[in-house]
Amino acid sequence: MSASKLVEAIRQRGLSLALGESLTGGALSAKIVDVPGASSVLLGSVVAYASDVKSALLSVSPASLEVEGAVSEQVSLEMARGAQSNLATACGLEISKVIACSTTGVAGPDLQDGKAVGTVFIGLAGPGELKSVFAHYFVGDRNEIRSLAVDAAIEHLNDWVSKL
Amino acid sequence: MSASKLVEAIRQRGLSLALGESLTGGALSAKIVDVPGASSVLLGSVVAYASDVKSALLSVSPASLEVEGAVSEQVSLEMARGAQSNLATACGLEISKVIACSTTGVAGPDLQDGKAVGTVFIGLAGPGELKSVFAHYFVGDRNEIRSLAVDAAIEHLNDWVSKL
Repeated sequence: MSASKLVEAIRQRGLSLALGESLTGGALSAKIVDVPGASSVLLGSVVAYASDVKSALLSVSPASLEVEGAVSEQVSLEMARGAQSNLATACGLEISKVIACSTTGVAGPDLQDGKAVGTVFIGLAGPGELKSVFAHYFVGDRNEIRSLAVDAAIEHLNDWVSKL
Repeated sequence: MSASKLVEAIRQRGLSLALGESLTGGALSAKIVDVPGASSVLLGSVVAYASDVKSALLSVSPASLEVEGAVSEQVSLEMARGAQSNLATACGLEISKVIACSTTGVAGPDLQDGKAVGTVFIGLAGPGELKSVFAHYFVGDRNEIRSLAVDAAIEHLNDWVSKL
């Protein structure tokens, strides 16, 4: 229900949505595509599972990946900005008309770069230069953590869009 | 279970997997990411919901989109080839080491470019220059058609990889 609300809220504001997913691996995009009419707002999602894909397709700086790690506030923000910017360019849209959301985190079962299982960063970018990042520390197994991250991303997007 | 089998079969052959999704909107990628150890084979997925994203990130020819339509064998093959080639390049891999799968189709409720609801094309590319495309005509609602397409893609990939 809240993905439907999100699609409608984005549509009403004349905006488009871009996604950059690592942790959620396409599940955030799939949840939005479940909504009939999603094609009126969703440009697409770059599921950047390998680090090199984060750099090549989401313009994440290799230095940020090396220094901060793939699971970090900085990389989360760069993924959101990259999704916004690269998908806007692909579609000939101005970044003032595109919002983006990114997910990065540790689903487990193992730690990643010293970050605990359940650590999740959700980045938001746009419209224009606006940006924000949210940190969560979820408890659960691999699939629960990813599902909680999808729900959190949709909630953050709904809050974000409702204030525009 | 069959996504686990696929991840293991790809890993055993020393290959990597790239995805280009339209119809399935990230759900194919999410299904593979559900498997622990998916990161050893999955490079990423380009969810190209907007046509312009198919061209910009999956190198689908605008002429194919215009002449054949987004839901066509030709676009399905180009999406798979584009995912294979662009994600291989992003990760510094040779295309002889990367296989790719694409999904395009009509989830409904409305026809698209004259194609019936349930029409689904699944493209396979790689390793190297190998390619194939499968046409399905599913019956179901929006979510059922997408779910059937995800299952069919995993089955085609499993068959494909088992013969390599």
